Amino acid sequence: MANQFVLVWSLLLTALTVCCLTSASDPSPLQDFCVADSNSQGIGLHIPGNTANAVGSAVTSATVTQIPGLNTLGISMVRVDYAPWGINPPHTHPRGTEILTVIKGTLEVGFVTSNPDNRLISKILRKGDVFVFPIGLIHFQRNVGHGNAVAIAALSSQNPGVITVANSVFGSKPDISADILAKAFQLDESIVRKLQWTF
Amino acid sequence: MANQFVLVWSLLLTALTVCCLTSASDPSPLQDFCVADSNSQGIGLHIPGNTANAVGSAVTSATVTQIPGLNTLGISMVRVDYAPWGINPPHTHPRGTEILTVIKGTLEVGFVTSNPDNRLISKILRKGDVFVFPIGLIHFQRNVGHGNAVAIAALSSQNPGVITVANSVFGSKPDISADILAKAFQLDESIVRKLQWTF
Amino acid sequence: MANQFVLVWSLLLTALTVCCLTSASDPSPLQDFCVADSNSQGIGLHIPGNTANAVGSAVTSATVTQIPGLNTLGISMVRVDYAPWGINPPHTHPRGTEILTVIKGTLEVGFVTSNPDNRLISKILRKGDVFVFPIGLIHFQRNVGHGNAVAIAALSSQNPGVITVANSVFGSKPDISADILAKAFQLDESIVRKLQWTF
Amino acid sequence: MANQFVLVWSLLLTALTVCCLTSASDPSPLQDFCVADSNSQGIGLHIPGNTANAVGSAVTSATVTQIPGLNTLGISMVRVDYAPWGINPPHTHPRGTEILTVIKGTLEVGFVTSNPDNRLISKILRKGDVFVFPIGLIHFQRNVGHGNAVAIAALSSQNPGVITVANSVFGSKPDISADILAKAFQLDESIVRKLQWTF
Amino acid sequence: MANQFVLVWSLLLTALTVCCLTSASDPSPLQDFCVADSNSQGIGLHIPGNTANAVGSAVTSATVTQIPGLNTLGISMVRVDYAPWGINPPHTHPRGTEILTVIKGTLEVGFVTSNPDNRLISKILRKGDVFVFPIGLIHFQRNVGHGNAVAIAALSSQNPGVITVANSVFGSKPDISADILAKAFQLDESIVRKLQWTF
Amino acid sequence: MANQFVLVWSLLLTALTVCCLTSASDPSPLQDFCVADSNSQGIGLHIPGNTANAVGSAVTSATVTQIPGLNTLGISMVRVDYAPWGINPPHTHPRGTEILTVIKGTLEVGFVTSNPDNRLISKILRKGDVFVFPIGLIHFQRNVGHGNAVAIAALSSQNPGVITVANSVFGSKPDISADILAKAFQLDESIVRKLQWTF
Repeated sequence: MANQFVLVWSLLLTALTVCCLTSASDPSPLQDFCVADSNSQGIGLHIPGNTANAVGSAVTSATVTQIPGLNTLGISMVRVDYAPWGINPPHTHPRGTEILTVIKGTLEVGFVTSNPDNRLISKILRKGDVFVFPIGLIHFQRNVGHGNAVAIAALSSQNPGVITVANSVFGSKPDISADILAKAFQLDESIVRKLQWTF
Repeated sequence: MANQFVLVWSLLLTALTVCCLTSASDPSPLQDFCVADSNSQGIGLHIPGNTANAVGSAVTSATVTQIPGLNTLGISMVRVDYAPWGINPPHTHPRGTEILTVIKGTLEVGFVTSNPDNRLISKILRKGDVFVFPIGLIHFQRNVGHGNAVAIAALSSQNPGVITVANSVFGSKPDISADILAKAFQLDESIVRKLQWTF
Repeated sequence: MANQFVLVWSLLLTALTVCCLTSASDPSPLQDFCVADSNSQGIGLHIPGNTANAVGSAVTSATVTQIPGLNTLGISMVRVDYAPWGINPPHTHPRGTEILTVIKGTLEVGFVTSNPDNRLISKILRKGDVFVFPIGLIHFQRNVGHGNAVAIAALSSQNPGVITVANSVFGSKPDISADILAKAFQLDESIVRKLQWTF
Repeated sequence: MANQFVLVWSLLLTALTVCCLTSASDPSPLQDFCVADSNSQGIGLHIPGNTANAVGSAVTSATVTQIPGLNTLGISMVRVDYAPWGINPPHTHPRGTEILTVIKGTLEVGFVTSNPDNRLISKILRKGDVFVFPIGLIHFQRNVGHGNAVAIAALSSQNPGVITVANSVFGSKPDISADILAKAFQLDESIVRKLQWTF
Repeated sequence: MANQFVLVWSLLLTALTVCCLTSASDPSPLQDFCVADSNSQGIGLHIPGNTANAVGSAVTSATVTQIPGLNTLGISMVRVDYAPWGINPPHTHPRGTEILTVIKGTLEVGFVTSNPDNRLISKILRKGDVFVFPIGLIHFQRNVGHGNAVAIAALSSQNPGVITVANSVFGSKPDISADILAKAFQLDESIVRKLQWTF
Repeated sequence: MANQFVLVWSLLLTALTVCCLTSASDPSPLQDFCVADSNSQGIGLHIPGNTANAVGSAVTSATVTQIPGLNTLGISMVRVDYAPWGINPPHTHPRGTEILTVIKGTLEVGFVTSNPDNRLISKILRKGDVFVFPIGLIHFQRNVGHGNAVAIAALSSQNPGVITVANSVFGSKPDISADILAKAFQLDESIVRKLQWTF
């Protein structure tokens, strides 16, 4: 079904090529379109993600990568699943603010303001609560309730990007020089190397 | 609890006043902040809206009006409840694109492209499906499943605005001259007047 | 002459392709160009539009569709002609604010603010008066003077789009389900079907 | 009448203050409003400007300075009158692209592209022709027909600004050092001083 | 001298208040102004920062905080000093892209792309080389030459913000729960607590 | 080395083509990338420009023309060299604000506000001082110290453009009609023609 989706979309895209190539730099879209289609099983936000991983959470995305029709429209959506005590580890979105609502369970959420304050703004959210993570700030969620938790979030870009701090810092390919990270995090280089081996 | 929220927010706002007054016209926010807080019962998106009305639907909003912390962040969220066969009648958002996912039930959704095509792009959405309504286009949803339906949607503005077509055209205060609407909709003025009395 | 124009433009466009393809997402244009050319008879704004139609008005557009040189420049212009008592029926521009000045005659103009107020802001404009229709709001004009009227308007997008409410709601292709519109407008389905047949 | 206008506007503005103070940095407006009102004699675009001056032209503006309701809406309008052989001398708009149409007469118009080409793009415009002057480029118009000429132009900013090259370079207050201008324009300092005395 | 600067600026600001309060949401500035003034000793970018700290680097900023005249203008500048082997530790700017040039010495610079690639793009820069760090991505510099190094960088916002990863993650006030960070970084909670004590 | 750079970049660009073609109109970038590379001798900002010309200054640019990786990132950088008493003649950037710092020597800098004030804001800058030239305003610098001077400046666009007033007005290709310039600058046509011959 996913293949069919891509096919249909390609045909639609061909028809729209002329106007798309003339789109360039207005701060708002320059044409009407385009129908979003995500009814293939793989993209639906109703299916729990697989949280059997080191952090106990999973993100299912509906960005322009999954839905070409989001192109130029400046918005996207994700579902996040959390196993008991699972976390969505500290991360940032370089190109979007996030608004999140809890669909099931109880979450502790927080973000840290920029230098020099580095103030942690955190809160316990229950079903139906809404919270905002401003663009580019490091933020996280943790399941602090009983059983699984689920959140739906939207981001103010069709392609907001995700930077998981631990993966970006300790898991880049190739590695950042260990002595840079040792100095930055005030850690022994041996611990840095172990972290780089982990991520 | 709502009062307490407003109070806390006011204090926070005072502290942020200096930077806010220097915010003006960048296409992105000019400062980090602000914690969104909507845990009062009245704002939570977990509470079904009251659909006992003429159209059989209800929208619960979390925009900058309800959450001052959304200011400058360019995003907002809503919950929509639909009674069986309830509709969210044709409307537009003058300042935002909408992304919607079905939480419960089955919805028929659609939007109409601009002149000269006026093409209806519609689709049946089931739980987990995602759809996009581009900025400013007239769109609608209808509950076509068994029982109630629920959707969560996000909009690409902190204050996207809502224009319900029937209310804007036939329910403005004061009325638009009946002969304008009679000519525009090719209706007898008597029907226009009846509509104006209804809305 | 139109053909010649397109030809000349194509050659110019080829020369500009490299810089155009590197234009992407700044909120302002990313290069200088491009000469607008609309001196062919078909595009000139000095020729009265044909108002012999159901609403008694005609719009002659100079957007990026007619003038490729407007690409990336975020502005366009139109001429509107009104027969006596002709109307420019309720419509919105999904991607642009409109500023209008009366060149000839007397117009009643108005727009309706968004929910929940649906406040009608209207005014009688005489030759030389200026009025603004904010982005995405439903607005209209009516010739309330003696003889024909003419207005020149500009919009804050190279491709603002036009959504004529009656055509979008009752004239979409395919039709919006009649029972949706019946419920939305509190009309008998028979009247809705007649309207759908009309538009 | 102008006074009355200001008064009415102030009252309206007070009512809108709350939402205006929360407007900050979205690339599009953050609220619906505001009715533009320019029916006082001084602002109307139907009254010919006084072209009895050194360049033989006059610009009548309808920007946010004259119409507070344009605030946040990103557009403005002007009327330009030209005596026979009058010119609108070389100038730029630092914050807006201009689209112009000829209402009466015949104009030679042109703009110069940026370095290194400095290419002059010029054209003879007759009644109804449309031309675009891209943001920030130096441009001009000249009446090359018989009798007076009139143009209506719109700009893609509520406050586009105008920089008349001769006035900015030779008429600044205080003067730019004469030797800077002598070197820049390869002119004798005596001629520069004379120009500075003129402007 | 700094006091004098603030004073002069305040007076200037008072004069500009009216136009500033009408600035709201265009993607570009809405008025001309304002003279930047940073000739007090404390702000000048010619004075080496004090690098006698744990990371061996110092950043001297010229953003809207130091120069109110940058307001609405969307750009700022910094000087970075590096002791031998000093680092500017991994950080992001939530609201700006950075362009950097080396004034003195030799720097290893790098940034990491977002998920899922986490690709490190790095380079050795010598005097006069230019490098770009895209908005929101984690990046760093290290002095890899002999003696001190100096760079001048500019950012595409008047208030880009800085998030030093180690300080934001391990040095927030209050602390992020240690078990969240232990799970996120796959570290023993004892090491996390030690890090939180350090930052 | 420059050739090698171009080659490497082309390959990188091919890989990025898909995401680039889907970039259109968000006010911020829509993807992460791209590594800037300017280590070829021709682009480095450490090499003094050749100031042996009529104005005694030279600008070395690092914009998207030299560094394709700047695409979508909204920033660029230049080095300006000044011989003793050399000037960077009056010019504007149609698409960017400029922030400048003095690396060596002493500069007199200034810009002129728009009509009707045409106010000259000028200042003497010494090493380390920072100054801002707002988008689109005419500005200049002059070396008023002993020996050569050097400045580094950044601009808020990947392709800000440069319009040198004298070249644009008197050196366009083809020439602006001499009588237009004679009237605009209140100069004899013979002087205008001489200037047009010079530029």
